[in-house]
Amino acid sequence: MTIEAKQGLESRAIQVPPSITRELANAAMSVEGLIPLWFGEPNIPTPKFICDEAARSLAAGETFYAEGLGRPYLRDAISSYMSALYGKSIGVDRIAVTVSGGNALNLAFQSVLEEGDTVVTLTPAFPNLLSIPKLQGARTITHALEVKDGKWSLDVEAFLETAKGAKVVLLNSPSNPTGFMLTKDEIARIMEVLRERGTWLISDEVYARTVYSGKAAPSFLEVSEPEDRLIVVNSFSKTWAMTGWRLGWLTLPPSLTPVVEKIAEFSIASAPPFSQRAAVVALEQGEEFVAQMAKNYQHARDLVCNGLLAHEGVTCPVPESAFYAYFKVDGVTDSIAYARMLIEEAKVGLAPGDAFLVGEPGWFRLCFAQTDEQLNEALERLSPFLAKAREIA
Amino acid sequence: MTIEAKQGLESRAIQVPPSITRELANAAMSVEGLIPLWFGEPNIPTPKFICDEAARSLAAGETFYAEGLGRPYLRDAISSYMSALYGKSIGVDRIAVTVSGGNALNLAFQSVLEEGDTVVTLTPAFPNLLSIPKLQGARTITHALEVKDGKWSLDVEAFLETAKGAKVVLLNSPSNPTGFMLTKDEIARIMEVLRERGTWLISDEVYARTVYSGKAAPSFLEVSEPEDRLIVVNSFSKTWAMTGWRLGWLTLPPSLTPVVEKIAEFSIASAPPFSQRAAVVALEQGEEFVAQMAKNYQHARDLVCNGLLAHEGVTCPVPESAFYAYFKVDGVTDSIAYARMLIEEAKVGLAPGDAFLVGEPGWFRLCFAQTDEQLNEALERLSPFLAKAREIA
Repeated sequence: MTIEAKQGLESRAIQVPPSITRELANAAMSVEGLIPLWFGEPNIPTPKFICDEAARSLAAGETFYAEGLGRPYLRDAISSYMSALYGKSIGVDRIAVTVSGGNALNLAFQSVLEEGDTVVTLTPAFPNLLSIPKLQGARTITHALEVKDGKWSLDVEAFLETAKGAKVVLLNSPSNPTGFMLTKDEIARIMEVLRERGTWLISDEVYARTVYSGKAAPSFLEVSEPEDRLIVVNSFSKTWAMTGWRLGWLTLPPSLTPVVEKIAEFSIASAPPFSQRAAVVALEQGEEFVAQMAKNYQHARDLVCNGLLAHEGVTCPVPESAFYAYFKVDGVTDSIAYARMLIEEAKVGLAPGDAFLVGEPGWFRLCFAQTDEQLNEALERLSPFLAKAREIA
Repeated sequence: MTIEAKQGLESRAIQVPPSITRELANAAMSVEGLIPLWFGEPNIPTPKFICDEAARSLAAGETFYAEGLGRPYLRDAISSYMSALYGKSIGVDRIAVTVSGGNALNLAFQSVLEEGDTVVTLTPAFPNLLSIPKLQGARTITHALEVKDGKWSLDVEAFLETAKGAKVVLLNSPSNPTGFMLTKDEIARIMEVLRERGTWLISDEVYARTVYSGKAAPSFLEVSEPEDRLIVVNSFSKTWAMTGWRLGWLTLPPSLTPVVEKIAEFSIASAPPFSQRAAVVALEQGEEFVAQMAKNYQHARDLVCNGLLAHEGVTCPVPESAFYAYFKVDGVTDSIAYARMLIEEAKVGLAPGDAFLVGEPGWFRLCFAQTDEQLNEALERLSPFLAKAREIA
């Protein structure tokens, strides 16, 4: 055995922490009657009109390799959809179809990162956002959001100070898990400074349409030029209840599109053509569904936040977007242990705050993309553990 | 602008060459009546019984996130399929469903590679095999197959000498583009030496079922123990005409499975559940189709190889597997230029040898997964350019 061989499984992959939530969920597989509110997923299957289009495409034999950047009809449809949504032309030469939002993030980082580069982002954050650049050899720095007047808030100038010297700034607005949303002014200011510095901005906007007023969250696309160093990540998962399909897209500077095409060729190549047909229908005929979902989520948010805030020991900044309540239970000293206890005793599955790169204990994420019945039952089950946290933890 | 920012688009991605074949194909989009034989793709759509199962699953609302390693029913089906095929138990704890063979290769390399490690493989080779580890920061070394007595052949001991000190040996048998296939004895010898050295072996066996005698090509799984440092890559693409679906799988040492699960979480997460249902049906009800395809390919191989060998200036080692003729035209000094000329003048699309990491000019790959009519027409169109190569090139 050579020395090299003996190192065995000590690759970079081993050093990236596994998903805490996934581990909890796997361990809870056998708990009967559990209400699982840990994953970020709508509770309803993909609308029938979208599924039917995929079935039609399959029946028509559309099962061959697709172009690396996606089928031309889908790239066209995305370009039209984005242009209409943001009231400015977003050319098809900037669009790359991807195999999920996660794949989009991987391609985005691969196209601009080098070993040892620094990536700066905000916390609380969806952990994969940082695991992806870490797996690519980047250093990561985080900057924490604050709670002010019962809402999540960002000191933009302090964040820009933290971001000095970074190769890439990564933002996720609307944010998972907090529902925090940057204002149009904050977006304009960040874009201005990063443009001046020549810093890359990867903007994960997969919750762009999960907002409670207006059609979409403010986007960096609204304050940028095509050749700005901006990469916007979108996904079909949340907006059209298509989580299982693994479909997303990137909006790129035109000069970066061929680079992403090249990397995609060495990654997954391209999403299934029958899924791409379904995606077109989602974009073109999905507005009624999207509007109804936003209403449902707003209703569910109010139900859940009111239910949580009824407990004195609970802090729950009211989310402005996405479909999560991210809340703190006073007195909890170990969120993972507490989440494990809640699985066993309350039979409710929550994602512990530790999963979102947050040091402070006591935080949990609850996905409220659920029926009223399930949410009411979950709140009732959680109730004794929110009131008595101090004694239990 | 900081110095860092000025470096701009000089990331690792930029340095990996794009796919030569993809570039030629893109440039040829407008050539009417072209017979495209460059890509490795069966000419028929996915069998109806497989598509129908996906449609049924979609109609049943199976559109949610799947487990990182794949749906349990598909992992079970793969374990049974592999165990039956190779006559030994291959446990479900070794199986990871992936989003294409390319994704499988990415996950395999990510799970064992570190920046600066060396990967050794054989040429001619499918270029993505080396682009993937290169994008992950590895150094790559190639060792050339030879043509002996009209067949591709490998000096195994010389190759093992080349592979000394490598972290990973990558093999692709049956091979794209050559159709070269390692014998059972060669496989046993390579496994023995690499085991002794503690070297990782990634064995890309996506053409395992595209063989002209027997049910499958010899596999490293047949001569290995579960905890050997062996990762086998398979795909649904070629065997069941499912190229567009992006579905593959890995067979891993059980201890590596959790590592791949973790990386998959940060990559694409998991293939669509409706595709995974279709994959089960392919595995369980596809044998008749697989056998028929092998017969068709053998017939097409004979047709094409005889057609090519009728020309004095053509060298065409007869492939034992896969669905490519990889042949040399005497006198061609620039395969890419010649392939470009063939697009324009013969209206036939071939992949130039340069695409397969081969230095020697004059080689081309022709995919014969086509109808007799198309193949005969292509041979006729190519005929003057095979006879006259010396004058034209």
